[in-house]
Amino acid sequence: MEYVFSDNTEPLKPSAIREIFKSLTDPDVISFAAGNPSPESFPVADMKRFADAIFDECPSVALQYGITEGFTPLRESVKARAKRRFGVGGDNDTAIITSGGQQGIDLTAKVLCSRGDTVICEEPTFIGALNAFRAHGCRTVGVPMDSDGINTDALEFAIKTAENPKLIYLIPTFQNPTGKTMSKEKRVKCLELAKKYGLIILEDDPYGELRFSGESILPIKSMDTEGRVVYCSSFSKILSSGMRVGYVICDNAIANKITVCKQVNDVHTNLFFQMICHKFLTEYDLDAHIAKIRELYGRKCALMLSELDGKLPGSVRYTRPEGGLFIWADLPEYADMKEIIKELVKRKLAVVPGDTFLCDNGIGTGGFRMNYSTPSDAQIIKGVSILADVLKERLK
Amino acid sequence: MEYVFSDNTEPLKPSAIREIFKSLTDPDVISFAAGNPSPESFPVADMKRFADAIFDECPSVALQYGITEGFTPLRESVKARAKRRFGVGGDNDTAIITSGGQQGIDLTAKVLCSRGDTVICEEPTFIGALNAFRAHGCRTVGVPMDSDGINTDALEFAIKTAENPKLIYLIPTFQNPTGKTMSKEKRVKCLELAKKYGLIILEDDPYGELRFSGESILPIKSMDTEGRVVYCSSFSKILSSGMRVGYVICDNAIANKITVCKQVNDVHTNLFFQMICHKFLTEYDLDAHIAKIRELYGRKCALMLSELDGKLPGSVRYTRPEGGLFIWADLPEYADMKEIIKELVKRKLAVVPGDTFLCDNGIGTGGFRMNYSTPSDAQIIKGVSILADVLKERLK
Repeated sequence: MEYVFSDNTEPLKPSAIREIFKSLTDPDVISFAAGNPSPESFPVADMKRFADAIFDECPSVALQYGITEGFTPLRESVKARAKRRFGVGGDNDTAIITSGGQQGIDLTAKVLCSRGDTVICEEPTFIGALNAFRAHGCRTVGVPMDSDGINTDALEFAIKTAENPKLIYLIPTFQNPTGKTMSKEKRVKCLELAKKYGLIILEDDPYGELRFSGESILPIKSMDTEGRVVYCSSFSKILSSGMRVGYVICDNAIANKITVCKQVNDVHTNLFFQMICHKFLTEYDLDAHIAKIRELYGRKCALMLSELDGKLPGSVRYTRPEGGLFIWADLPEYADMKEIIKELVKRKLAVVPGDTFLCDNGIGTGGFRMNYSTPSDAQIIKGVSILADVLKERLK
Repeated sequence: MEYVFSDNTEPLKPSAIREIFKSLTDPDVISFAAGNPSPESFPVADMKRFADAIFDECPSVALQYGITEGFTPLRESVKARAKRRFGVGGDNDTAIITSGGQQGIDLTAKVLCSRGDTVICEEPTFIGALNAFRAHGCRTVGVPMDSDGINTDALEFAIKTAENPKLIYLIPTFQNPTGKTMSKEKRVKCLELAKKYGLIILEDDPYGELRFSGESILPIKSMDTEGRVVYCSSFSKILSSGMRVGYVICDNAIANKITVCKQVNDVHTNLFFQMICHKFLTEYDLDAHIAKIRELYGRKCALMLSELDGKLPGSVRYTRPEGGLFIWADLPEYADMKEIIKELVKRKLAVVPGDTFLCDNGIGTGGFRMNYSTPSDAQIIKGVSILADVLKERLK
């Protein structure tokens, strides 16, 4: 039969990345396309030990329904760590455990945005967030970025000209897909603009723990004294992405609404893995574990950059991230991105084309995203060679 | 600061049951209020064994991102079991793994219902579904039930008079909160009405495996030849509710839309527990395990019924379920339900007041829901005594 789908979901398309991810079953394809953590970063032995302890000590709690806000001890240990590490969370803030960082974004949009509202974003930006906003009937408006993050003049212009602006969505640290980090000054300015125009900032910080060089810059949320910033993060990049445990730290009033929406969404997040996360936060040297991941990613990023430096034609520009998972490359304007992607796929290299990350008003970014955490060293070297060959041929 | 919440979530209230659940920290309170499976039903030792095997055999798969539709082997084993046990699932149908049955309901509503549409429900019905519909901006219209399920004449009248009817939400087997089961004839009639008026049926079947007496009646989905029924179920009542693994079986076209919405909602369901469920479906005698749960609940239900039969005043009527988790009691019209609930709470017995389960047009059902799977035998006996004392005093 023919179906009539809802107004909000009718225009939604599957995420190009997820679709690429699905098609990567050919073991010969080198993928720079994923956003996956390295399997080397999973603390398997310790996780097994903690899982066994939960089965032995309190299986009836772990396997039973829990409360929607999350496992209370985990909410407390998450809040304590966010405060200690990043200065995040004030007296009126609380932590809600979500089913991955994605659910935090989705529920925040659901709670704050009505059909027809506008969400203002960095451009390019995370496709998962863009689709969440679209699925709530929101317009998305993109603001260009400088090398030190969003252009704040353009941001103010976008706010002033948007219809029903409601939310500013930002990934200030090791942004997806660009790998860029917003300067302290711009973070201050973004918060000022949000205040001036009565908007909420949704600060997405899944990569904040993954700095391997440069000076740490605190999240915007650390400067928030009035509950204007909703801070989303997760354990996906430091423990396991497959377990789907994330969190939101925000003002109690927003948290209460998020809780009601989460209740009707999935009742609560997998309780067993919430308890595992709590053990990692309280019975384990998580900082030492993260230090190892940082070192691994720093090494892999440096390898990819040195390969790019040595092999790519000079007309291609790319970012030099200080952390996170991604390098972004910009091609000269005359390049035909679609043809280049096709040719790369033919030679068995997958990258993510830039137009995936565009807002509703976006005009085709001729760039692409590369990930260095998932491919092996040999794959990084071989992949960059394929890329260089194709670009040299196509950018003549 | 003052927040302006979204149009759809502004009117949402926290679920009374979840709130009751949260307040049940007083160990002296006897709770007939939960919808929890008995902790005795959790196969802890086998789950630990399966978990260890996953940590040993394929941790990098289990802890990494998976695909949104769910772990492919689990999707296949779920579909095979649904077909074998309940005749559910045709050639054009597929199984999507969801984060509990609740997410299946929420995503189905999100995909099919636009703001202003009407969802037609049994009344009383599951509050989690009602709130999901409301969170998508839908009206809910309740249709009264007979002892053998929804009154189909009233259903047709409701369809004819509703504004933009889109979905019929039904829990045909061991309905929550009434414990009633819809007859075969009425299931046929519901499907006919859906077809006649061009509506989709959302069939929620979380308790279908829990029959402890009477003859099995196949789900409406088993008669669906054209993709008109979306079937939701879960492992919450047969393996573990805290792990949040459920599934939707529906036409591919709807499944594709659900997948896109799930992608922006939580990317995918906890992969580790999806793999555990697959092991329970393929390396374990799940039927034998469920037979034990059925026997346990049959015994507990019989105990509660015999206590009610012996102690309650004759003016109180209640259902005699053949499976599931709940007994529903109706009080005479003159009873003051609010006062009775207050008095029960004072004497440390929690039940769920009937008005919790009302649709938007509902007029105060003077009944209440009791659960027999969670309390111990001693608690069932003592709880019914408290109930009988209060009702005898209040229904004079």
